Amino acid sequence: MSYSPGLHLLAELKSVDSNLLNDFTELKAFFMDRIRFYGLNQLGDVFHNFEGGGFTGMVCLTESHIAIHTWPEFNLATFDVYLSNYQKDNSAKAKSLFEDTADFFNTTDYTLREVRR
Amino acid sequence: MSYSPGLHLLAELKSVDSNLLNDFTELKAFFMDRIRFYGLNQLGDVFHNFEGGGFTGMVCLTESHIAIHTWPEFNLATFDVYLSNYQKDNSAKAKSLFEDTADFFNTTDYTLREVRR
Repeated sequence: MSYSPGLHLLAELKSVDSNLLNDFTELKAFFMDRIRFYGLNQLGDVFHNFEGGGFTGMVCLTESHIAIHTWPEFNLATFDVYLSNYQKDNSAKAKSLFEDTADFFNTTDYTLREVRR
Repeated sequence: MSYSPGLHLLAELKSVDSNLLNDFTELKAFFMDRIRFYGLNQLGDVFHNFEGGGFTGMVCLTESHIAIHTWPEFNLATFDVYLSNYQKDNSAKAKSLFEDTADFFNTTDYTLREVRR
């Protein structure tokens, strides 16, 4: 039997204020707020600041995951949100969560790929 | 300045033995072994078994991440490996890690997308 889990968005956010890319504290709080707002279910997370600036972070959800990796030296972040549709269609939430994240970084300069898995 | 972080592979592994998809214990040990083998650097991980079968897991790396989500009821897993090239080109390791994972699940029935980010 074939099954299509859901929508995975992959984005490269460019020309982002390097201050927002240096330390995960604000972004982690923002993700936690958005996860509650959209009624998603968090299983755990890993966030890590690199020496010299930049960070990496992941949030594991019952609906799949969110991931962020930043390169402040290039004013760049890559962002993933993958939400499966186990009990309801979460595609709109994935798209909104990406838009919220672009707003957080205050940029409209990005590439966005939509992968239906 | 433009910068291309690295290769992200997204796979749907199909027709997988549902026993391998039910519980993360074996796969987690396999990932840890492969991470050491390829000289990747783990920052943390989250693995979770769902009631009724199936699991979700992520490993956060300095090189980016690995993620797995399973649906034993559909003999399906989705797998991501995204390795950035900060100090060296890790594309070959990403591809090998995918091939190892398909071997672990003992399947050649999969779709694979390669995204250069």
